Amino acid sequence: MPVTAPEVLHRVENGVSWLTLDRPEAMNALTPAQRERLITLLSEASADPAVRAVVITATGSAFCAGADLRAAPGGGERVAGDVARLIRGGAQRLIASVLDCEKPVIAAVNGTAAGLGAHLALACDLVIAAEEARFIEVFARRGLVPDGGGAYLLPRLIGPQRAKELMFFGDALPARDAERWGLVNRVVPAEELEKTARAWSDRLATGPTRALSLTKHLVNAALDTDRATAFAAEAAAVELAMTTQDANEGVTSFRDRRSPRFQGR
Amino acid sequence: MPVTAPEVLHRVENGVSWLTLDRPEAMNALTPAQRERLITLLSEASADPAVRAVVITATGSAFCAGADLRAAPGGGERVAGDVARLIRGGAQRLIASVLDCEKPVIAAVNGTAAGLGAHLALACDLVIAAEEARFIEVFARRGLVPDGGGAYLLPRLIGPQRAKELMFFGDALPARDAERWGLVNRVVPAEELEKTARAWSDRLATGPTRALSLTKHLVNAALDTDRATAFAAEAAAVELAMTTQDANEGVTSFRDRRSPRFQGR
Amino acid sequence: MPVTAPEVLHRVENGVSWLTLDRPEAMNALTPAQRERLITLLSEASADPAVRAVVITATGSAFCAGADLRAAPGGGERVAGDVARLIRGGAQRLIASVLDCEKPVIAAVNGTAAGLGAHLALACDLVIAAEEARFIEVFARRGLVPDGGGAYLLPRLIGPQRAKELMFFGDALPARDAERWGLVNRVVPAEELEKTARAWSDRLATGPTRALSLTKHLVNAALDTDRATAFAAEAAAVELAMTTQDANEGVTSFRDRRSPRFQGR
Repeated sequence: MPVTAPEVLHRVENGVSWLTLDRPEAMNALTPAQRERLITLLSEASADPAVRAVVITATGSAFCAGADLRAAPGGGERVAGDVARLIRGGAQRLIASVLDCEKPVIAAVNGTAAGLGAHLALACDLVIAAEEARFIEVFARRGLVPDGGGAYLLPRLIGPQRAKELMFFGDALPARDAERWGLVNRVVPAEELEKTARAWSDRLATGPTRALSLTKHLVNAALDTDRATAFAAEAAAVELAMTTQDANEGVTSFRDRRSPRFQGR
Repeated sequence: MPVTAPEVLHRVENGVSWLTLDRPEAMNALTPAQRERLITLLSEASADPAVRAVVITATGSAFCAGADLRAAPGGGERVAGDVARLIRGGAQRLIASVLDCEKPVIAAVNGTAAGLGAHLALACDLVIAAEEARFIEVFARRGLVPDGGGAYLLPRLIGPQRAKELMFFGDALPARDAERWGLVNRVVPAEELEKTARAWSDRLATGPTRALSLTKHLVNAALDTDRATAFAAEAAAVELAMTTQDANEGVTSFRDRRSPRFQGR
Repeated sequence: MPVTAPEVLHRVENGVSWLTLDRPEAMNALTPAQRERLITLLSEASADPAVRAVVITATGSAFCAGADLRAAPGGGERVAGDVARLIRGGAQRLIASVLDCEKPVIAAVNGTAAGLGAHLALACDLVIAAEEARFIEVFARRGLVPDGGGAYLLPRLIGPQRAKELMFFGDALPARDAERWGLVNRVVPAEELEKTARAWSDRLATGPTRALSLTKHLVNAALDTDRATAFAAEAAAVELAMTTQDANEGVTSFRDRRSPRFQGR
């Protein structure tokens, strides 16, 4: 039963779904079973009204060393199209499940995030990193091309030149430089990582969940599209948000000069 | 006569159209009448050959607190599509009138720019901010989704992660951080804000207006499109600019080793 | 024989094709013959399996002062469409030949990069600059619109507001500021420029050339397209890379815990 693989710890606390990669002995290199488990848990978080934010983090000294290479297709006979199919159904599907999750997702990057592990973190809506964390586009060092949306995500965050520097050389980017470049939102000492992730996710979990989700999807689409399309999507999203109880509470509490109590619907 | 509403001061000086929000007692929360007045003045600036640059600023301690919530559609019975229509005809039309203004537009942000007020500033071609200024994506705090193109503008300026941090939490971003992130061009002490805006707008108003306008529109379209489309638009714009008197003056003055005197046509 | 114009020095060393603009007395203002020579050499570098990286640099105190204005079409009678045609066949073709070169291209910017010279540098995959280097969007000072893809390239690197500041005013951007903004990858003292370019290009020339080329093209297309298109291109590129000998060597060497020896195919 791979979906209960113990290598992804899962708990829901105060409306936050915590997903913790727990294979520290392998630097949390992602097995297909773990990947499927993450996708399932993200899908459940999307659907469960009691979940209003998600945190992805890991145990041990690494966040995620990428896809477990032992699980990669062997060097033997291949049929043309097999690799592309595996990428679509594997790495890309995982990244899409983060990007499309209906709840805001925070990455709490405790250590090295390499390859697909880096892209898993960067696909999250907000990224908090421990000082020891570092991001490694390891693909070129293996003769490979980045998968899991790296070439899609990184230029949107740091522009094409810095993206190519990371991808061509595969050198580690320390968390502090990643923050300066805008690749992560915040760097904190390791001992404060969980506390910060908790504070941020608690704020999100008491926020107007539907409005946050609509906002997330507008931002995710923003650099994929042109102004007319973006404005049309915005007008529809604003109207949808306006019909929620949270919008009513938001406007009412503002007029009453008190803090809003959002229910997430 | 809403178009003569006193809440938007207007003067033209040395080829610069100064638009000053003047409802400081309401933190310059934008009424529909003010919004329409801004759109009209921007349209006039586009058409008037004597206007060669625009400055948008405000009196008092705030730049613009966003759309005046008292003018928002009430909580009563709504017809589906009403809000989207209001957004298109209101906030989005204002932002588009800045983006599409034929003259370069400078925001001189004297204080808090919140909600639509932040987007009004960020839609401008150049943004100068006083040290006390701050940008607040206030929507989530009211249970709402950003309108007026926020999700379109911000990821282009600071990438999707920082945009989401601002939009999810609604915390104030101080001017200094906004400058570091590339959200504003320059931060100056409050007492130098008008002087700097004057210096910048004077430079623009003695520039090759037609070439600046063509350049503005190329840049505004750049992240909406692909290379082939961008190159085709560039080739047409370069040819158009080349036929202006200013281009002739520019090349002639360069060959004569003197400063050009651009007439704006 | 313009293709042997001495004004572009050329040598291949250790798999790196060095292209050096050599008209220092004219601040390396680019003549049509030099431009054609660069395009030819980039095309040869694309096709030659012995070339695995390219460096573009210049002799003297300037990198490239832009297109040689003396070679611009005269002020006499023009036929509508002539300028656009010249831009497409000239400046844009040069920039495209850098963007589309099958090998990674490094700019080693030794001094002023102005106008088309700036865009030539910024179209390169990686940009190293001497401390004395500076970037000048000189067009507006001549009454012109940026050509050679400036309005396409700059917003992708530094966002639309900073791009407009550079383009509207035409002021020089010092190398240090360019690095801070993410317009160049690294700034070094002038005496270390060639050494750094050599170190970087040597690394690239011993890399998995095919994978680097595929990565380059994914990144260059990333901001031109949407997620579905980017993911489809990625899946195909990953599969192509996976069939190379370098990918085999990369994975094998990783399993054998030794450094890979990439052959570039």
